[in-house]
Amino acid sequence: MASVAAVEEHDAANANDHANCRALGQILDRVGDKWTVMVVGTLSRGPLRFNSIMREIGAVSHRMLTLTLRALERDGMVTRTAYATIPPKVEYELTVLGRSLIDPLRILSAWAVENQPTIESARRQFDDATGQREIVKA
Amino acid sequence: MASVAAVEEHDAANANDHANCRALGQILDRVGDKWTVMVVGTLSRGPLRFNSIMREIGAVSHRMLTLTLRALERDGMVTRTAYATIPPKVEYELTVLGRSLIDPLRILSAWAVENQPTIESARRQFDDATGQREIVKA
Repeated sequence: MASVAAVEEHDAANANDHANCRALGQILDRVGDKWTVMVVGTLSRGPLRFNSIMREIGAVSHRMLTLTLRALERDGMVTRTAYATIPPKVEYELTVLGRSLIDPLRILSAWAVENQPTIESARRQFDDATGQREIVKA
Repeated sequence: MASVAAVEEHDAANANDHANCRALGQILDRVGDKWTVMVVGTLSRGPLRFNSIMREIGAVSHRMLTLTLRALERDGMVTRTAYATIPPKVEYELTVLGRSLIDPLRILSAWAVENQPTIESARRQFDDATGQREIVKA
């Protein structure tokens, strides 16, 4: 598993941090997008049709989901299969490459869930200290 | 370690995937930013002054680095310490929270480095197939 290897090769990775950083930066421009993350998370449970993905995610627009799925297809992370039924049926499914992204995103996801309260409290403290707090009172 | 816990709680996590997804989406809007990733990577080796961070990262503008460091400070991931020396010295350092992000980003980084050639080749194939390839010839 790549993630275990990454931790085990911790020391070796130190030397390559800069190269890793740049590669990660480029890839994060794509996979760091919130809709990409949600689509990969939704498809992690199996292939789905467009409308099912849309329903699962909830707050995504038709256009945004179309763009996200097309970008994922272009990156080789999702396959789009059209069935010649009436009405026509189109299914989206993670490829092996797409599935390999599930674990790294889950680890980052666990970090986000665990630390969200800390981050939010740090933000409030910072805004109080710098006087930039938004006035929410009625 | 949060990352190991995340993998072990794989099944429990399935049930919470949707909540995780949303929290991750919000956090990724911040930490998924390429400059944030590079700053955290650069500071992972220890505290640094502004100009040193800038030199390490290379292609970042003064303004973008200022904004990124301030956002990280607001999120409680970086401390900014000013020393009353002549000339004044300001050092940036990862907090405990900031340091806890290093491993998740390193795992994602290892994924990015490992799969970048595959993604690039998938893109070329997709563009050839859909006729959207950019003309690079002279």
